[in-house]
Amino acid sequence: MSSTREPIQYADASAEVRTVYDDIMATRKTQWINNFWKVLAHDPPTLRRIWANIKEVMGPGALDPLTKELLYVAVSASNGCRYCIASHGTAARNKGMTEMQYSELLAIVGLANETNRLVTALDVAVDPEFLA
Amino acid sequence: MSSTREPIQYADASAEVRTVYDDIMATRKTQWINNFWKVLAHDPPTLRRIWANIKEVMGPGALDPLTKELLYVAVSASNGCRYCIASHGTAARNKGMTEMQYSELLAIVGLANETNRLVTALDVAVDPEFLA
Amino acid sequence: MSSTREPIQYADASAEVRTVYDDIMATRKTQWINNFWKVLAHDPPTLRRIWANIKEVMGPGALDPLTKELLYVAVSASNGCRYCIASHGTAARNKGMTEMQYSELLAIVGLANETNRLVTALDVAVDPEFLA
Amino acid sequence: MSSTREPIQYADASAEVRTVYDDIMATRKTQWINNFWKVLAHDPPTLRRIWANIKEVMGPGALDPLTKELLYVAVSASNGCRYCIASHGTAARNKGMTEMQYSELLAIVGLANETNRLVTALDVAVDPEFLA
Amino acid sequence: MSSTREPIQYADASAEVRTVYDDIMATRKTQWINNFWKVLAHDPPTLRRIWANIKEVMGPGALDPLTKELLYVAVSASNGCRYCIASHGTAARNKGMTEMQYSELLAIVGLANETNRLVTALDVAVDPEFLA
Amino acid sequence: MSSTREPIQYADASAEVRTVYDDIMATRKTQWINNFWKVLAHDPPTLRRIWANIKEVMGPGALDPLTKELLYVAVSASNGCRYCIASHGTAARNKGMTEMQYSELLAIVGLANETNRLVTALDVAVDPEFLA
Repeated sequence: MSSTREPIQYADASAEVRTVYDDIMATRKTQWINNFWKVLAHDPPTLRRIWANIKEVMGPGALDPLTKELLYVAVSASNGCRYCIASHGTAARNKGMTEMQYSELLAIVGLANETNRLVTALDVAVDPEFLA
Repeated sequence: MSSTREPIQYADASAEVRTVYDDIMATRKTQWINNFWKVLAHDPPTLRRIWANIKEVMGPGALDPLTKELLYVAVSASNGCRYCIASHGTAARNKGMTEMQYSELLAIVGLANETNRLVTALDVAVDPEFLA
Repeated sequence: MSSTREPIQYADASAEVRTVYDDIMATRKTQWINNFWKVLAHDPPTLRRIWANIKEVMGPGALDPLTKELLYVAVSASNGCRYCIASHGTAARNKGMTEMQYSELLAIVGLANETNRLVTALDVAVDPEFLA
Repeated sequence: MSSTREPIQYADASAEVRTVYDDIMATRKTQWINNFWKVLAHDPPTLRRIWANIKEVMGPGALDPLTKELLYVAVSASNGCRYCIASHGTAARNKGMTEMQYSELLAIVGLANETNRLVTALDVAVDPEFLA
Repeated sequence: MSSTREPIQYADASAEVRTVYDDIMATRKTQWINNFWKVLAHDPPTLRRIWANIKEVMGPGALDPLTKELLYVAVSASNGCRYCIASHGTAARNKGMTEMQYSELLAIVGLANETNRLVTALDVAVDPEFLA
Repeated sequence: MSSTREPIQYADASAEVRTVYDDIMATRKTQWINNFWKVLAHDPPTLRRIWANIKEVMGPGALDPLTKELLYVAVSASNGCRYCIASHGTAARNKGMTEMQYSELLAIVGLANETNRLVTALDVAVDPEFLA
């Protein structure tokens, strides 16, 4: 038994999986499914559940679509998830992110990781003004 | 010798530290310095250096000021830095972040942390389309 | 001088290293040593020490052997350690983990990472009932 | 505007929130709601979504309920989420986890974090046997 | 059953636990045991095992004792472990760490966390010169 | 648009980038620039800023140059940054780090990650003696 899960293509997918694939393509107005979903497809309930979460969280709301993608990229960059940076980075570029904006995003991710450690290590007390 | 560093108030600060405090207050158009800087002040070169980094990275650029603060809050929330969430959360609210936007930001931080782990654990290959 | 440490094969190992290799194979009832130990073998005291820890912690106890491997896989997946997921995933499969169980394990790892961030970011107070 | 979100009690909750609270209590066969849900209640869609995820992922499946809680506790301990350790630790104890089992779980969490770093730092190549 | 483990004092400890306490005090030439060991004492095998690891890893070797403590503090600061920063920070100060050295250590921890993220997010290829 | 940033060679670099490259080579007394800087060069302000930070933090101070590199390697190993381990590991070797010292460093990184988790999970109270 292998520990690796190969992407499941549409042609090889069960009806249950195809239903999710169809909704991903319809929602994103594309004919293409990226590998993350094709690998998740080995576990149809998780495929369905995670897609439902992404669709709801990344759908229309109080934050505009580009800002949402920027936040997703920033967290993924902070966590070092190479695939997620590539996939959400592409999504952000498709929504208008420029290379200069991406550079600034990375600068913020780096600096926040630096100051987060300094603040925590120095055990800085939260100013009452921030809790007012 | 204590391992804790108490905040250094303006009245007790050296000329070197006051110069940074003055620039923080002038840049932020406020009369107030928060604890992070007052604790960093035990190490004047680091105080000066970190402030210079923050001033440059968070200053005017390709991303608008609110988006920059949202990114800082998101990384800090992902890293669990309570002080940083409080300080940059306040800054974001002062720049217009609504509570609904903050809720959506947290939802993205949480979901990205979930999918980051799934993607990495499943060792999903980056689609060539993302590298085009 | 290279920063990379090549696996040391049994035939090339010192008596000190062979003693650990022999114990690993005897304990696991196998003729095979995986790369982790062969790379650690460049530092015999650490090889001996880490093996002694693994042997004690993963040996018979209050938790059954499969549950112990599942916990090891879950932490490794949460930390994104690809090698550890592969090695302990194989060990778990050898002890009976099914693919459906692995899918559920990954779903828990992902969801815990999501709720861990939400809880910490929202600074939720621990209910007194949990400390009773 | 405060950055802190106070728990919303049942008596003060909207109908939308009460519906989730009712389902939590019915599912868990209890009259009690812990603080995590009461704080999430400031954002009803997230409250509903996260509860639906927890209910599905932690519900009946291929892994028994105690093992699921142990995995949740292990990931939370690895991430240092104090609230999550307390809440899921209590759930695990209610499902039968003994103190000796908890000690062994923590020992595995600690050791996995140690070997995860050694493996990654030494860049150990995955043995082909693990991918077979 | 409580999820909290209270420190076990010497007077209340079993013979097995006292043997470890005695070795800690003899090795460190002190009459005092800090809380970490007193809490671990609820699980005597882990108490004994972790102490044996610390004694070996932090004992005489190729790195001098102060450098070893500095490395321990740096990792703990990077991980945000407040207790570990306090305990190993005190040990480092007792071995000669000055406040200026501590400031420089924290500056390195912060900056490494920044550049670690930039390098990983940008997926920088390792120069062949580093592998020579 | 590609998400990958190729290293920018000296011959292809702008005057602004060359100024930083020149300072790196002069400071390090070498004719060689490693990939990190060549990739950062797509964003000249960040290239300049990060180099200024590295030059100041890693320059002469209260900690000797080898200790500074050891700390950088330790944090990078703890964070799993393969490139940073390779680059700062090479720098540490050039400053005199022996393989035995590197082994001890890794042992400390591993053990600190283990005890950091145990301490945090057990929520050990900081001894008043550490705050004196």
